[in-house]
Amino acid sequence: MDLFEKLLTNRGPLGSHSHYAHGYFTFPKLEGEIGPRMKFRGKDVLTWSLNNYLGLANHPEVRKADADASADWGMAYPMGARIMSGNSNYHEQLESELSDFVQKPDTLLLNFGYQGVVSIIDALVDRHDVIVYDAESHACIIDGVRLHQGKRFVYGHNDMVSLEKQLERATRWAENTGGAILVITEGVFGMSGNLGNLKEVIAMKEKFNFRLFVDDAHGFGTMGKTGAGTGEHLGCQDGIDVYFSTFAKSMATIGAFVSSNEQVVEYLRYNMRSQIFAKSLPMPITIGALKRLQLLRSKPELKDKLWEVVNALQTGLREKGFNIGTTESPVTPVFLNGQIPDATQLTLDLRENYNIFCSIVVYPVVPKDVIMLRLIPTAAHTLEDVSETIAAFEKIAQKLDKGLYSSSSVTA
Amino acid sequence: MDLFEKLLTNRGPLGSHSHYAHGYFTFPKLEGEIGPRMKFRGKDVLTWSLNNYLGLANHPEVRKADADASADWGMAYPMGARIMSGNSNYHEQLESELSDFVQKPDTLLLNFGYQGVVSIIDALVDRHDVIVYDAESHACIIDGVRLHQGKRFVYGHNDMVSLEKQLERATRWAENTGGAILVITEGVFGMSGNLGNLKEVIAMKEKFNFRLFVDDAHGFGTMGKTGAGTGEHLGCQDGIDVYFSTFAKSMATIGAFVSSNEQVVEYLRYNMRSQIFAKSLPMPITIGALKRLQLLRSKPELKDKLWEVVNALQTGLREKGFNIGTTESPVTPVFLNGQIPDATQLTLDLRENYNIFCSIVVYPVVPKDVIMLRLIPTAAHTLEDVSETIAAFEKIAQKLDKGLYSSSSVTA
Repeated sequence: MDLFEKLLTNRGPLGSHSHYAHGYFTFPKLEGEIGPRMKFRGKDVLTWSLNNYLGLANHPEVRKADADASADWGMAYPMGARIMSGNSNYHEQLESELSDFVQKPDTLLLNFGYQGVVSIIDALVDRHDVIVYDAESHACIIDGVRLHQGKRFVYGHNDMVSLEKQLERATRWAENTGGAILVITEGVFGMSGNLGNLKEVIAMKEKFNFRLFVDDAHGFGTMGKTGAGTGEHLGCQDGIDVYFSTFAKSMATIGAFVSSNEQVVEYLRYNMRSQIFAKSLPMPITIGALKRLQLLRSKPELKDKLWEVVNALQTGLREKGFNIGTTESPVTPVFLNGQIPDATQLTLDLRENYNIFCSIVVYPVVPKDVIMLRLIPTAAHTLEDVSETIAAFEKIAQKLDKGLYSSSSVTA
Repeated sequence: MDLFEKLLTNRGPLGSHSHYAHGYFTFPKLEGEIGPRMKFRGKDVLTWSLNNYLGLANHPEVRKADADASADWGMAYPMGARIMSGNSNYHEQLESELSDFVQKPDTLLLNFGYQGVVSIIDALVDRHDVIVYDAESHACIIDGVRLHQGKRFVYGHNDMVSLEKQLERATRWAENTGGAILVITEGVFGMSGNLGNLKEVIAMKEKFNFRLFVDDAHGFGTMGKTGAGTGEHLGCQDGIDVYFSTFAKSMATIGAFVSSNEQVVEYLRYNMRSQIFAKSLPMPITIGALKRLQLLRSKPELKDKLWEVVNALQTGLREKGFNIGTTESPVTPVFLNGQIPDATQLTLDLRENYNIFCSIVVYPVVPKDVIMLRLIPTAAHTLEDVSETIAAFEKIAQKLDKGLYSSSSVTA
């Protein structure tokens, strides 16, 4: 059989929609400065789909830091992997400041978050070890788990009964192999907005011997008194043995970091394949991240503003009877009843007639009869943006209830 | 068993040297503008360890493009995965220009090369398919193969007898599973400088049904009449079904791309996990890559200069009796006989007393009694740099032969 012929027989869950979705529902272009008001196909839209939680993407100090660092260094420096020729004082300074901020002894910068998580998991475990992970873990965690040659057990999302059962199984398995146990979950789940049950997971350490790795991509900067993340928010940062966040959300750039004790970070520094065998984080991104971290730490009003918008949006939606699930974070899902064709028409209507741009999630991520619209509030949004959006959502929900999207064909 | 305690019992092949190597042999800082003369621990060194093949890292037009794009866009734009909210006209323009340059119908930009390769392999095959790959493939290829749930066969590096045998086995296997075969190799092997035997691999298509994926990280920009890579150099670009290069070498930035026919690129666009679930390439990097590609295409003198330096270096080393293996690319390994302690003293001597900075490779990458020094010539080097280096190499080789590095203890 020919590999290419085979590929074309199954275009995948997203690819099967590409013939009508491309450029509109998938690969859309949001143009203009990052913020609540951007252009989509030439028209102003109120945007709720960017993880620019603290509004740092276009903060004047951030923009100046990015511009200055690129002018000073160019995008090439430093060349090579960190271990070979890609190290600098700025990389080490950022690691030191991140350690201080997330209250961990040491930190390793990562050249990209996705492959960072994959390689952290890969480096921490060998074939004798057992991974126990939350069923709704992000794709990068799943890919890391897929690399694992030893046993893995998945527990029901945030289900502590399930976790305990899997830890019992994992413990028996590890006793036989002489291996150890790594538990993996997230601080904030990016689809549902649920927090990981970190305190309860950590409490399991009283009964079981394991280490806990938490991916806090959506929690870093948004959760906790100082913005140090979900562990700080829940008062259990010490119980997180390996803490990870990307820079792609609150920090509004690329790259990532992992924090732990000195010995473990030293181990990761010398054993993470995606870091040893790939280029270091470019200097403008490193210096830009230093500036973002400084603002994140010195301007608590950004997080306060974010939460003012989050609370207005989530309270407002709940008051109007919308099902926003069990979110306890800025991530705001809105669950509606409908099929994929309804979702398509509804999104088109929302964008074309209400000028609201948000992400839409359908089967197979949610069940077949569910449409999930995901709103990401940011510190840059206003309370007027919230009112406008809730009013529009009421109208589209009414149309959906009346079956108007099934029968009509709204066109762009 | 405790996971952290276990980790510390085996610090890994590189980590076991970190107590004396860190900051000098590993994680060194090369400071100042990227080029042949940089600072290492405050001292000027002649640098041969950066993959800045065409000297583009500090080309004035590149530096201006990087600075302007960062000032215009900041590092945040566009936010989100390409498929969700991270697309732009510039991303599409770069894809179009890359397609034109490497003579393939379509191209997908990748947010990072390492995870790009991993996810390309992951997306192309399923559990019924068979992967056949070169034994000296880069770590990112190995990680992609490790994700594969189906059968894999490794063939001896560039060994066509071994490849044919493995293709026979793969064909029998695929006939049973109903799967297809993907062969993976590289254009230029980054350690040895060997070219992949692409023409011979492609000739196997007459006897076997497979598709060929080539990682041309070190060949893009350096090989072929126009710099379009190893396929162009060997006159067999059409036989490469899926062509990949990173931007981390000749292009002197980060990011990467993959090119193939429209249907396959469309498939990859909608099915590569590291691209669907992670942030798009930032705009300054995208615009900076457009500028680099323009220079790469319009200034053949850069590649000519690179090869003038390559030829002088390789001819000069061979004439002095050095074993530089079988390189046919700019990558220039120098194989010496010695143990790890000799290698340490030799490198120290080279850096401290001859002011030459190059990468050193020891066991387990090469056999226990081999020291490999790897030189990366660039268009920015001069013929004087070459003479100075060969003279220094003659001296350190004499000292090594006399056993001086085993007995002495050169200190930094």
